[in-house]
Amino acid sequence: MRNEIDGHTILIGLMATPIRHSMSPTMHNLAFADLGLNYVYLAFEVDQAHLPAAIQSVRTLEMRGTNISMPNKRIVLELLDQIDPAAELINAVNTVVNDDGVLTGYNTDGIGFMRSLAKHKLDIRGQKMTLIGTGGAGTAIGIQAALDGVREFDIFNRQDGQWEAAQRLTKIINEQTDATAHLHPLAEQAKLRSSLQTARILVDATGVGMKPLANQSLINDPNWLPADLIVYDTVYAPRTTKLMQVAHQAGVKTVMNGLEMMLEQGAAAFKLWTGHEMPVEHVHQVLFNEE
Amino acid sequence: MRNEIDGHTILIGLMATPIRHSMSPTMHNLAFADLGLNYVYLAFEVDQAHLPAAIQSVRTLEMRGTNISMPNKRIVLELLDQIDPAAELINAVNTVVNDDGVLTGYNTDGIGFMRSLAKHKLDIRGQKMTLIGTGGAGTAIGIQAALDGVREFDIFNRQDGQWEAAQRLTKIINEQTDATAHLHPLAEQAKLRSSLQTARILVDATGVGMKPLANQSLINDPNWLPADLIVYDTVYAPRTTKLMQVAHQAGVKTVMNGLEMMLEQGAAAFKLWTGHEMPVEHVHQVLFNEE
Repeated sequence: MRNEIDGHTILIGLMATPIRHSMSPTMHNLAFADLGLNYVYLAFEVDQAHLPAAIQSVRTLEMRGTNISMPNKRIVLELLDQIDPAAELINAVNTVVNDDGVLTGYNTDGIGFMRSLAKHKLDIRGQKMTLIGTGGAGTAIGIQAALDGVREFDIFNRQDGQWEAAQRLTKIINEQTDATAHLHPLAEQAKLRSSLQTARILVDATGVGMKPLANQSLINDPNWLPADLIVYDTVYAPRTTKLMQVAHQAGVKTVMNGLEMMLEQGAAAFKLWTGHEMPVEHVHQVLFNEE
Repeated sequence: MRNEIDGHTILIGLMATPIRHSMSPTMHNLAFADLGLNYVYLAFEVDQAHLPAAIQSVRTLEMRGTNISMPNKRIVLELLDQIDPAAELINAVNTVVNDDGVLTGYNTDGIGFMRSLAKHKLDIRGQKMTLIGTGGAGTAIGIQAALDGVREFDIFNRQDGQWEAAQRLTKIINEQTDATAHLHPLAEQAKLRSSLQTARILVDATGVGMKPLANQSLINDPNWLPADLIVYDTVYAPRTTKLMQVAHQAGVKTVMNGLEMMLEQGAAAFKLWTGHEMPVEHVHQVLFNEE
């Protein structure tokens, strides 16, 4: 099933640290093999100090592109020739495409989120999102959803070091998109509860529910969650977080973890590099057949 | 049969131009798969102008190493931290090993030549070599053979732009090894004929016999070739050169083309990178099963 690697094989990278345990190489190489595409995808341990040289390697070795992950998603913007408008608003790049030496930065995290909903024929355009957490994932989701037509956002965040990013996200949605956003401290629990009564979707992008915060949830009362709310936790390890358990108790019909978003952000990058749709179902099956 | 590529897979390169049609990627990746080693070997189009950045990529991407081929074998010496003594004498590097950021240059072309003889239990130590051609292959063969114990060399070369390299090779063998070398213009045909009467091995390292000089030979009279002379043509496409045909006509018992040298130079590099012996027979079989 693997491609034969020969003198024509083109390299695509993943530059982050720590990175050796990433599933992305397995995902992309499997998809290349499925489609008979002559690429290979490798992970490289690259920290912020070495990112400029690593991006130079994309040019020198005529790589087709690279994924970028922590801690390099923001500083990579300064090293590229062009930034896709959505990535510019998100202020983070996770995918670089090399077109004959011109490097363009994209962010497929928010695209992956929207694609994962579309796969289930869930249309949140024109409706309201309650978004908790404004780190990398939350920002990408919020901006992409706003660009794609979500009408209103209630954004909740702790008033900690991340508060400024929360303010920035709110401002960008209000000023650069057709949507409206309201920012609230997470401590305003009554506000959160009332937001959920009129929202189409709750997105928890905080990482609560994942180690070291496994078995924790920001919402513990099933009564807060209407049955027709989509409850979306961006965590995918464990597959069922505490929040998702609460949602099930509440009788919520649509409960999703972050697995499909992870796959779909990869599929979106794959499409940018190769022009082909990733065989997501097969990748899903092979990578997560333990489930 | 292919390895699964994952986040731990280590990159090894080949930096040259033109390079996409090289068989080295197929050779090494097959050997990695056979032995279950988690490396991938890729070819990169790199010219002299881009070689410094490409060598920097070896460091930045923590590649295990790289092969170097034309036109970069000489200028790469300036870009490395250490040069193996034999490679220093040859003044060319075809293999770079990265040990935790320290790059060492080796030349495995001459090693590959000597290994190919050893495979056939041919021992040329203490004896005389008639060597025609002092380009990259001829120089590597001459110096490695001298270091390994060949006693005497009659070196022949055209008095063209390569004559200075021929003089350098002769001088190095005489001054830096225990062997003795005599240089002659190729035009001195009587000298060549008489040299062959007392030599153990004739090595044609000129490329005559290969396109665009296919069906040509520097020796056309079978009477020049004693039956117990080893006739070794470094060309391997075609598998049987004109010189080899003449040797067969002469009843020469041991006639070799450059295929095993090519495989064994790769095996020697493979050993330097991985510490493992390449499964040369299997590689040979898969790469050249058309033969």
